[in-house]
Amino acid sequence: MPKHFHRELEKLKKRILSLGAMVEERVYMATKAIENRDSNLADKIIKSDYEIDEMEVDVEEECLKILALYQPVAVDLRFITAVIKINNDLERIADEAVNIARGIQYISKGKKLHFDFDFYSMAEKTEAMLKKSLDALVNMDVDLAFKVCLLDDEVDKINAKAHRMVKDAIKDNPDQGEYFINLLLISRHLERIADHATNIAEEVIYLIEGEIIRHRDF
Amino acid sequence: MPKHFHRELEKLKKRILSLGAMVEERVYMATKAIENRDSNLADKIIKSDYEIDEMEVDVEEECLKILALYQPVAVDLRFITAVIKINNDLERIADEAVNIARGIQYISKGKKLHFDFDFYSMAEKTEAMLKKSLDALVNMDVDLAFKVCLLDDEVDKINAKAHRMVKDAIKDNPDQGEYFINLLLISRHLERIADHATNIAEEVIYLIEGEIIRHRDF
Repeated sequence: MPKHFHRELEKLKKRILSLGAMVEERVYMATKAIENRDSNLADKIIKSDYEIDEMEVDVEEECLKILALYQPVAVDLRFITAVIKINNDLERIADEAVNIARGIQYISKGKKLHFDFDFYSMAEKTEAMLKKSLDALVNMDVDLAFKVCLLDDEVDKINAKAHRMVKDAIKDNPDQGEYFINLLLISRHLERIADHATNIAEEVIYLIEGEIIRHRDF
Repeated sequence: MPKHFHRELEKLKKRILSLGAMVEERVYMATKAIENRDSNLADKIIKSDYEIDEMEVDVEEECLKILALYQPVAVDLRFITAVIKINNDLERIADEAVNIARGIQYISKGKKLHFDFDFYSMAEKTEAMLKKSLDALVNMDVDLAFKVCLLDDEVDKINAKAHRMVKDAIKDNPDQGEYFINLLLISRHLERIADHATNIAEEVIYLIEGEIIRHRDF
């Protein structure tokens, strides 16, 4: 492969990582917005989502350009198809951050009701999964990628706990159903972010080991 | 491109369409299971999901093989990258059918509570969107693909209506929060299936028009 090709590949790697960093920032903002019920911050997440959308389109066009121009094979080909899919997951994570922001806008309108569930810690765990999955991509670290897959179970359990707690809260506050449903949905959006981080980790494992491990139980 | 290549491409097209048909069947089963609160049918959806998972992996490996062996360009390259993404959406639609099935298993355990929302008609609309998006792919029908994108708004509105109705139902039946939350989640899963069908339609439009139309408002 010519020098140009490797330069293009490096550029693509930088691009997907910088999209990753932007999306991480969105998840961090969502985490902070949850902690402080901060509707201004939520507003910022919603209004800046178009930046992620634009970048996703750019990355995909870049991938297609490289595929068409250089017709890479083996590990390079696998890398580019992995980027196409990771790109997609990153954009959807940002969408989930927007969904969380909408939930926060709703719940911050009224008075804060008692609900003894630690969203902040759930959000932190989810954010850490995303960070680890991107680190695994940068450093081609298959062990770290496997760790992300294991962490997903933990977040699933936390989400199930939120579900049970919301059910009880609604029983005690039937007039506040909408409020607690919004809390439940925030928990589900976090859980979906964790799912997407797991998808990214699985792509990294595939990239390194050449084996599709999706749908396998850990 | 050699004859073999076109044969492989035809084979790939048949494969993605037969995966599409299988996934359509799952959505149809979910629709029926909703209508009749049929937990046996729900059980079938859950137990047969591994078939879809296996087929998704096969289709992706096929795509990578074709890319590596024949190094296609232009419209052929675009077709294969579209298949990689559509394959992903189809598998996730089947996952949503499984999520719906789990919801049905829960609600069919207890007695049927009054809830005047037409899930069946929502499910039918969603199923029709999926069918149209796959027809658009087979026939390279850009007009049909655009229609699917427009239908998505309708399903979003129906989902918003379900949300409002669940809120009211919970107010009147605070002890049945879990039941109504499950109904709400079924509506959300249907809405996500519609989102994935829209993704497929957008891929078809891109395939035909060579333009990424995601994130554009209709």
